[in-house]
Amino acid sequence: MDEFALIEQFFAGRGVCRDDVLLGIGDDAAITRSDSGFELVIATDTICAGTHFLPGTPPRALGHRCLAVNLSDLAAMGAEPLWCTLALSLPEAEPCWVQQFADGFFAIADRFGMALVGGDTVRGPLAMTVTVHGRVKPGRAIRRNGAQEGDSIYITGVPGQAAAGLRVLAASGMTAEAGARPVQRFLYPEPRVMEGLALNGLATAMIDVSDGLIADVPRLLEASRLGAQMELANLPLAAVGTDDALELALNGGDDYELCFCVSPGNAAELELRAADWNCPVTRIGTVQRSADIVWLVDGQLYNAVPGQFKHFS
Amino acid sequence: MDEFALIEQFFAGRGVCRDDVLLGIGDDAAITRSDSGFELVIATDTICAGTHFLPGTPPRALGHRCLAVNLSDLAAMGAEPLWCTLALSLPEAEPCWVQQFADGFFAIADRFGMALVGGDTVRGPLAMTVTVHGRVKPGRAIRRNGAQEGDSIYITGVPGQAAAGLRVLAASGMTAEAGARPVQRFLYPEPRVMEGLALNGLATAMIDVSDGLIADVPRLLEASRLGAQMELANLPLAAVGTDDALELALNGGDDYELCFCVSPGNAAELELRAADWNCPVTRIGTVQRSADIVWLVDGQLYNAVPGQFKHFS
Repeated sequence: MDEFALIEQFFAGRGVCRDDVLLGIGDDAAITRSDSGFELVIATDTICAGTHFLPGTPPRALGHRCLAVNLSDLAAMGAEPLWCTLALSLPEAEPCWVQQFADGFFAIADRFGMALVGGDTVRGPLAMTVTVHGRVKPGRAIRRNGAQEGDSIYITGVPGQAAAGLRVLAASGMTAEAGARPVQRFLYPEPRVMEGLALNGLATAMIDVSDGLIADVPRLLEASRLGAQMELANLPLAAVGTDDALELALNGGDDYELCFCVSPGNAAELELRAADWNCPVTRIGTVQRSADIVWLVDGQLYNAVPGQFKHFS
Repeated sequence: MDEFALIEQFFAGRGVCRDDVLLGIGDDAAITRSDSGFELVIATDTICAGTHFLPGTPPRALGHRCLAVNLSDLAAMGAEPLWCTLALSLPEAEPCWVQQFADGFFAIADRFGMALVGGDTVRGPLAMTVTVHGRVKPGRAIRRNGAQEGDSIYITGVPGQAAAGLRVLAASGMTAEAGARPVQRFLYPEPRVMEGLALNGLATAMIDVSDGLIADVPRLLEASRLGAQMELANLPLAAVGTDDALELALNGGDDYELCFCVSPGNAAELELRAADWNCPVTRIGTVQRSADIVWLVDGQLYNAVPGQFKHFS
């Protein structure tokens, strides 16, 4: 089976049909129509074997993950998903593997109304690069740099759950029951797309948490040249059967939850909008003028030591 | 040096400034404005070590190549370059290497007015995935499937030159004089962007030739459900000092020339437009109703055996 047969069989003509896709897979490039009255939001992320996932990860989970991590970037801008491209590097073309990978990819693409419009399949080490396109009303994208002194800082979901799942999986040699909740959260991260859209016009700044709170909260505040006092007492924690649940939440990574700032005057409006969400939302801090980030648990200083994954560190 | 320092130092804030880029590198995603009155053209291509380039290829040439092969896809649609993203997978972050890579990347990006708006840097096997965005007036993109019976088939440039250069390079263990013309053509392929734009409203179908004429001419004609009689007598050939120049032109690959169809009534108009080009343009065949592709040299049947590079074949 060659590259073209592979694409034809497993990718071409699959997934949602969108009116704004004028030409999809099969030519030198795709053609889309960007409706006037919107700005385009573009993000790209690569996952590769050994660095971002373990050998033995089910292909269906990889198909899900490579798109989910990109959808999470759109979510963090408050953008509506539109189209994506997929560059797939494979050591060999094993049809059964590719089929499961494609099934995982289209399951999440379809769910978020995203069309695959193009791609490339090459022989090489196992890796996937996805580029996603979304849209926002002019000026309405939620950037990192809009935080104001006094804003409340919130987090969606249960940070640390994915890291807990990864620990279970790794300990079992990738044979752990995929249905267990933390394992599921790690293998199939859920981008908070609807939540990000609902925060439009409400959140002043937002980031998706992929490297753990200790790494990503400073990134969010640095962009606004501000600091924060964090209070972790109310942070929902993953039930991991050990006493390091807080460390997993802070340093674990791979959660793809949204961390965002909202003015105190909009707390009631946030509560209203979050009532529909599939995940909890928790207030975990306050934006401050100082450039420092102070981490507290029940008012006691917590020694939050960054130990997050850093490429090339 | 970590990923963020790397991006900050070598990529952020470099390259052309464009009014339609509202937010570039540094947030979760980029924001661009797509002017009404245009359609968006999107393409993505990966190059990876061992498959698409030899170990020892200069980093500057890789920075050039990963964008050039994508610009070639825009050229083949007759699209104007706008923005791109770069996903860079590196085994190690060697600043000198990254600097030269970035220099090669921005040299060609700047020349074609393309802005780098986002990307990802990961630790992994050496590979680059670029996604490019261009624009065309509504309905004016030059697809593969518009060829008409009787159209003349043309090729830009001197196909086979890149393969000749690769042969020289490989034989020298990558130490060959980079200034020699075929070596230069292989290391720094020149996407025919201006030529593609000039063919707007003139070419009925177009493809960029990356796998050699034998592989890509059938792809062009298949899309139109037609065949062709090819006449190679006038094809300009690379001076390779051997007698297989024609084979290199047909099977060599990596040329990134444009192969396109024009109605015979527009031959004079093509000649007029091509007068400004930096490369020759040569008529090499005629579109026919039959689905076959017949290859002739001076009217004699030429046994064109496909031996092109195919991933996974």
